[in-house]
Amino acid sequence: MTEPAQLIEPRLPRGLEDRTPQDIAATEAMIARIKEVYRRYGFDPVETPLLEYTQTLGKFLPDTDRPNAGVFSLRDDDEQWMSLRYDLTAPLARFFAQNYDRLPKPYRSYRQGYVFRNEKPGPGRFRQFMQFDADTVGAAGPEADAEMCMMMADTMDALGLAGKYVVRVNNRKVLDGVLEAAGVVDAGQKLTVLRAIDKLDKFGVEGVRLLLGAGRKDESGDFTKGAGLDDRQALIVLAGIGQGGDSSAQSARLDEGRAELAAMQSLFDAAGYGPDRIKIDPSVVRGLEYYTGPVFEIELTFAVRNEKGEQVVFGSVGGGGRYDGLVSRFRADPVPATGFSIGVSRLAHALKLTGNLPAHEADGPVVVLVMDRDQVASYQAIVSELRRAGIRAEMYLGSSGMNAQMKYANRRNAPAVVIEGSNERAQGVLTIKDMIAGAEAARNFTDNATMRAARPAQVNIPRADLVKTVRDIIGAGAQG
Amino acid sequence: MTEPAQLIEPRLPRGLEDRTPQDIAATEAMIARIKEVYRRYGFDPVETPLLEYTQTLGKFLPDTDRPNAGVFSLRDDDEQWMSLRYDLTAPLARFFAQNYDRLPKPYRSYRQGYVFRNEKPGPGRFRQFMQFDADTVGAAGPEADAEMCMMMADTMDALGLAGKYVVRVNNRKVLDGVLEAAGVVDAGQKLTVLRAIDKLDKFGVEGVRLLLGAGRKDESGDFTKGAGLDDRQALIVLAGIGQGGDSSAQSARLDEGRAELAAMQSLFDAAGYGPDRIKIDPSVVRGLEYYTGPVFEIELTFAVRNEKGEQVVFGSVGGGGRYDGLVSRFRADPVPATGFSIGVSRLAHALKLTGNLPAHEADGPVVVLVMDRDQVASYQAIVSELRRAGIRAEMYLGSSGMNAQMKYANRRNAPAVVIEGSNERAQGVLTIKDMIAGAEAARNFTDNATMRAARPAQVNIPRADLVKTVRDIIGAGAQG
Repeated sequence: MTEPAQLIEPRLPRGLEDRTPQDIAATEAMIARIKEVYRRYGFDPVETPLLEYTQTLGKFLPDTDRPNAGVFSLRDDDEQWMSLRYDLTAPLARFFAQNYDRLPKPYRSYRQGYVFRNEKPGPGRFRQFMQFDADTVGAAGPEADAEMCMMMADTMDALGLAGKYVVRVNNRKVLDGVLEAAGVVDAGQKLTVLRAIDKLDKFGVEGVRLLLGAGRKDESGDFTKGAGLDDRQALIVLAGIGQGGDSSAQSARLDEGRAELAAMQSLFDAAGYGPDRIKIDPSVVRGLEYYTGPVFEIELTFAVRNEKGEQVVFGSVGGGGRYDGLVSRFRADPVPATGFSIGVSRLAHALKLTGNLPAHEADGPVVVLVMDRDQVASYQAIVSELRRAGIRAEMYLGSSGMNAQMKYANRRNAPAVVIEGSNERAQGVLTIKDMIAGAEAARNFTDNATMRAARPAQVNIPRADLVKTVRDIIGAGAQG
Repeated sequence: MTEPAQLIEPRLPRGLEDRTPQDIAATEAMIARIKEVYRRYGFDPVETPLLEYTQTLGKFLPDTDRPNAGVFSLRDDDEQWMSLRYDLTAPLARFFAQNYDRLPKPYRSYRQGYVFRNEKPGPGRFRQFMQFDADTVGAAGPEADAEMCMMMADTMDALGLAGKYVVRVNNRKVLDGVLEAAGVVDAGQKLTVLRAIDKLDKFGVEGVRLLLGAGRKDESGDFTKGAGLDDRQALIVLAGIGQGGDSSAQSARLDEGRAELAAMQSLFDAAGYGPDRIKIDPSVVRGLEYYTGPVFEIELTFAVRNEKGEQVVFGSVGGGGRYDGLVSRFRADPVPATGFSIGVSRLAHALKLTGNLPAHEADGPVVVLVMDRDQVASYQAIVSELRRAGIRAEMYLGSSGMNAQMKYANRRNAPAVVIEGSNERAQGVLTIKDMIAGAEAARNFTDNATMRAARPAQVNIPRADLVKTVRDIIGAGAQG
């Protein structure tokens, strides 16, 4: 290999991250539990590649009001543009349309994987992150949407979050109907009204009323310009989202949305999901251009401190809704679809906070020290014997001495260390150090010399007792 | 959503594939077993992102003689080039160098994920595929290489391939030493000699001798130009790879390589790995520019038919070796490293052929039919009750009639179908169809009308016996 002329600084591109063993193990455990729920609901896994033709993906990012929303694109070797998927929904649309004839309809599926956004990264905002989606394609009725909400609730229960979440449900037709009834027609004004509604949790009814009107000044004195509705319009909107106001205004679309919500509510009742788990909430705003019917989101209701030190509810860890335009880029006949997406890192973070995911280090391996370089075959035989017995074990593979090897064993979180020096070899014995009991004992000794003389948690055993002794030590450690 | 002006054809880019539930389940089962072995060897998981700065990755594809070897690259929004990783080794180098101070040394790790090659796809050659790598960084001695070989052997055993594989081991220093002893100095000629050696399995000693000399004509009359060695040189090379010839020629490098192989052999002996599992084989050629010491590959030894219908051994499913230049792009001090990589799809394919991975369909869900649209809440209650009992179950979510719903249930591989029509509702009962027994019975009836009258494998049960009855049917099916 040619020596490079100059050393390169090893660094990750901005907005990307390496994952630790703890994070990997925690996420895997979480995902396994989610999959078990989805499987029980009859959903099958499917996986599409990370690259698609740019033309196939289109540009239907749900958050169209996000600045710099973008995709990573590159040119194929035959000059066709491809892009890294920005969500798991656009590839599903391609997959469903391409395999239309052979798939069962309705088609329930789930998928999990990385998606990419070519935008400015920030705290908690990455350019590669994992989503976990479930979708039912080809089902037009509200029972498909209701099923999504119940599956979300069951998933939260399965993750140990019972009593700490609520699935909030609304319908785009309700919001559209409210806008219609209030006579809001300008697209920009509609957007500002929806943004104002979305702030109900944060600012309360009075805050929303100000944002619907002239605007709102916050504690720091910053002014947010409002939607400019007159009082009558604002009252109609507030009534539409169930916050008093003037409920006399009517709209066919509003009625349709409310009827769908009522149908969903009767399914929740029949299946025994009370409002502590799934709650119709006309103030839910989700996705501005994307959804065509019911929308829902999972909100975690427990309090956390935000970066400013304020107590806030944890908030959304996922959501979705009906998007009947899903396959319309590929097929002339309409294909109804509903689905939702979980933000995997955010949910894993929540589970860590609530103690529902192991946050501890993985169990370390037993470390077999290398005391004499020329006896390495003997150490290899020891480590192989342990591994054959199903015990996680390593032989030290570096070139350092005894002290560094003990430090290595500590760093590896080793429950035990196996030592065969020349004395041991002459006598046919091994020295086994119990690292957990040893650390315990060290805390009780005030003086190093005394401790060394006492040799706590260290045993000499016949070579033949290796596996039995190590098993006893690991068992005790696991119970301790 | 704006209606697109024209419909787009839904299609995958060339060389990419969608994965089926069967493939996903089989691969997950395989990977779980591999991870269990690696964990037992003390290896920890680590995961890096799919994108890296192009400059960071460099261009160290192991198969430098492959035509059109290339990476997918794109420009960052701040004009820096990034690339999709083409293997899992280059990102490991970056990760290790970037986290040098905090990582234990030696550092054992494994990682699994997709890699990308921007090259012409072909049968079995994809532009996105999964690799599963294990590496030990910071260990210079042959015991680290020997451990890799033993871990590969244990992995094959854990996958049920005992007796069907051999891990073949060589050393780049042996091959370099042979070239040195034979006086081959030209880089192009070296490459041709190594390619000739690599053909020993395929063409035998005589074939290799021809390829070392003027060249070889195959059965079809096609001529492959040889390396142009004279007879004396060819004999030295053949001796070097253990195929008779002239073993009098010497080289310090050859001796060094042979000493390392002997050290590895003594470790295999000490740990009880016979030549049926791990075999030193001086004809193994692997990676031409990349490796600096021991090289190894896992060969599956059972016979399969190739695309021409010929009986051939299945061949390599992975391999690796020592590459002490790993981190040299980032750090001035040398960092020794050894590792190996498994081709996940190829290994999964082998396991399917040998019956070591489930090839069957996933268990289908119980399907609850929708007989009366206005009773959907009642069907929802039934399906929720089944799911709460841990039974995989669906309510039919489409808008079709009874026949189409039964077809759907068959397509979903449903073990049972639950029916509540108006008659059943009036009597407080349910009809349950046992789909497995039903299919069985249908084979024994010669005439459809008789079968329909007999209603095989269909029971009427009190509504309260739902879960118990379905459990009995599923249990019988699972045993049958």
